[in-house]
Amino acid sequence: MSMERLIQAIRACQNPTVAGLDPKLDYIPEQIREDAYRQYGKTPAGAAEAILRFNRGIIDALTGLVPAVKPQCAYYEAFGWEGVRALAETIAYARKKGLYVITDGKRNDIGTTMEAYAVAHLGENSVEEFAFSPFGANALTVNGYLGSDGIRPLCKICNALDKSIFVLVKTSNPSSGELQDQKLASGETVYRAMGAMCEAWGADSIGISGYSRVGAVVGATYPQQLEELRQALPHTFFLVPGYGAQGGGGKDAAPAFDKNGIGAVVNSSRGILCAWKKSGGDFMEAAAREATRMRDEIMEAIAAR
Amino acid sequence: MSMERLIQAIRACQNPTVAGLDPKLDYIPEQIREDAYRQYGKTPAGAAEAILRFNRGIIDALTGLVPAVKPQCAYYEAFGWEGVRALAETIAYARKKGLYVITDGKRNDIGTTMEAYAVAHLGENSVEEFAFSPFGANALTVNGYLGSDGIRPLCKICNALDKSIFVLVKTSNPSSGELQDQKLASGETVYRAMGAMCEAWGADSIGISGYSRVGAVVGATYPQQLEELRQALPHTFFLVPGYGAQGGGGKDAAPAFDKNGIGAVVNSSRGILCAWKKSGGDFMEAAAREATRMRDEIMEAIAAR
Repeated sequence: MSMERLIQAIRACQNPTVAGLDPKLDYIPEQIREDAYRQYGKTPAGAAEAILRFNRGIIDALTGLVPAVKPQCAYYEAFGWEGVRALAETIAYARKKGLYVITDGKRNDIGTTMEAYAVAHLGENSVEEFAFSPFGANALTVNGYLGSDGIRPLCKICNALDKSIFVLVKTSNPSSGELQDQKLASGETVYRAMGAMCEAWGADSIGISGYSRVGAVVGATYPQQLEELRQALPHTFFLVPGYGAQGGGGKDAAPAFDKNGIGAVVNSSRGILCAWKKSGGDFMEAAAREATRMRDEIMEAIAAR
Repeated sequence: MSMERLIQAIRACQNPTVAGLDPKLDYIPEQIREDAYRQYGKTPAGAAEAILRFNRGIIDALTGLVPAVKPQCAYYEAFGWEGVRALAETIAYARKKGLYVITDGKRNDIGTTMEAYAVAHLGENSVEEFAFSPFGANALTVNGYLGSDGIRPLCKICNALDKSIFVLVKTSNPSSGELQDQKLASGETVYRAMGAMCEAWGADSIGISGYSRVGAVVGATYPQQLEELRQALPHTFFLVPGYGAQGGGGKDAAPAFDKNGIGAVVNSSRGILCAWKKSGGDFMEAAAREATRMRDEIMEAIAAR
């Protein structure tokens, strides 16, 4: 239970990475776009269809090689409700192929509103007697600025339906320290306090691998903090952005892993989606090649510690 | 410019309140639901249609009386992409009626991803040469945990298109203090530090009323902090949740306003949407009656200070 499904998927692939599905139109080969526009016009519906076809190709290329995908909501919402339909269909397709899906929405709110987000992205809803799964991911990224009222409603649904969350702790961006690195009167940093809350929120859902359902987002661009947090948060599984396009390498991500070589999943988005632009040739082959290279780099970096 | 459009709308209505459009199916009169189900089935499409019809009724009832509406994304996402279509259509309808629309999404991310959210909710996108507005609100609520990298991409679009944002500073929920009330080594609280960032982010967009495009969310359930922040953040306009169902009254919200009686807009969601359940009769009349009562209570509380 808990984070076990993701950990098992990582073990099965021998690959602790996740492919970010952050599609911008110019990441998509012209042929796919033109085909979609011919059918649906140069419209939001046409763009959404192009995104969906591209994602299906990426998912087909990565199935068996990569354990998880992480669609980023913003890139779908940018095409309106038709983009959001492509998000739902992408998630459904990835799950049908057996991939673990982390929806990167960084959602946050309180009480019944947060319950609505949990229902939307992880749970089930109903229209009178008709039950359905609105988006149906395995995990959701969330922001803990509002405290326990924003996280507990999620934990309830995670426990009931075997889902997980990842709470922003120390993000990968240059300005993440403006708030997160500030020292509290207690002497600890804001990101450490947020990390401690993750341990508390996850305390009742620790699985056999030692990790709870409540994970944390910790960037590869701050390897020292990554190492510090790995020590401080022994039951918190890490989702690690910042690899590749944002500047982090395999060595930077390695401190996210525990002595057993588990405890984290490292994300790459642009590096995989846009691999065909660098290498030329088929976008699916290029994505699989880059995902393989990334897997090897990270597995070596873990072994070399 | 800046927050001026909202301030003008508030002046025109003599009403510093916003109606939250947080529709749950059981807030919607049975007749509206049954009509929608007859046409679209007891499906997400049927639920989305019921929500849209209910919202249109509420908007019709409040036009001219209330300056702004605030749809909360979670309640639409809970019905999948069809719910999100109802969100887009609700926003379009409210804007057509001349209402100011604040999308309550509490979005947060960095760089190009945050740009995608800004484009989605406030800006314009294009599919090749075809330009369109994905959701097209006037303002968006956001979460500043990631620092300037998460806010600057929004400011750019706000300045270009005359839009605004509201950053979570001190939220209305019971656990908001877990992080937000913690004292930093500097002696100030986390919420004060976030408030100071709002002043900095808004410094180049201050309008003739003295308020910038970068507002703050500060709950009515903490009137003391509300008063403290009103003093500390003279250029930051407040969006004030927590009135009504969450326990705050007119007196609690009054400290959000400056000596000229401006500087804030107070939200009520359930109180207005569900007024018909208490009073009986038509839901539109009940919503207008409750919105009028709320306006009078808040205007009196401002005058009585």
